[in-house]
Amino acid sequence: MHVQQAAIDRVFHALGDPTRRAIVEKLSEGPITVSRLAKPLDMTLAAVVQHLQILEKSGLVRTEKVGRVRTCRIEPKGLSVAERWIDERRSLWEKRLDRLGQLLAEPDVN
Amino acid sequence: MHVQQAAIDRVFHALGDPTRRAIVEKLSEGPITVSRLAKPLDMTLAAVVQHLQILEKSGLVRTEKVGRVRTCRIEPKGLSVAERWIDERRSLWEKRLDRLGQLLAEPDVN
Repeated sequence: MHVQQAAIDRVFHALGDPTRRAIVEKLSEGPITVSRLAKPLDMTLAAVVQHLQILEKSGLVRTEKVGRVRTCRIEPKGLSVAERWIDERRSLWEKRLDRLGQLLAEPDVN
Repeated sequence: MHVQQAAIDRVFHALGDPTRRAIVEKLSEGPITVSRLAKPLDMTLAAVVQHLQILEKSGLVRTEKVGRVRTCRIEPKGLSVAERWIDERRSLWEKRLDRLGQLLAEPDVN
């Protein structure tokens, strides 16, 4: 349970930053090298690498170094963690609405 | 497009904070007054109200004041914004995988 909570914290912390969401958006089009990823971003390569490390730890992105080139790709595991959390919230909320609907549909016993 | 981007920014910024996610988790069980919501949280009422304002602006939470009591409830619109963003990333990524699969399945023409 606590492990799961930590994973949720890491994913939503990672997605809470607009640059990191822009990186995930770019990577959903396909794998890309770190230097090509960094080019359109208005920041140092070191800052991009730092964002990538947070994304990697959250399970949203995977990077791999071949020779001198590091390539990043999306890792759907992290997206699933966020999706599941949202689904659970929505389903709890909808169940409650259903129960309310049932209560309102019951004949008045008073 | 820019309006949509601003909505995505607000929702993920709101969900990026663990206290605000805890508030959304609590509210998915049902509406609750601000004072009852604040009780188990280890912070001042003013801090809770500040978090609620961010959640309200993001469309994740709605609050309503009746007399002297303010009640908060979940607003599924905000959850949908986050869900859609994640779905789009996943679907782009899966389409790319499909195209790769098709390319690999094609007979070698060289």
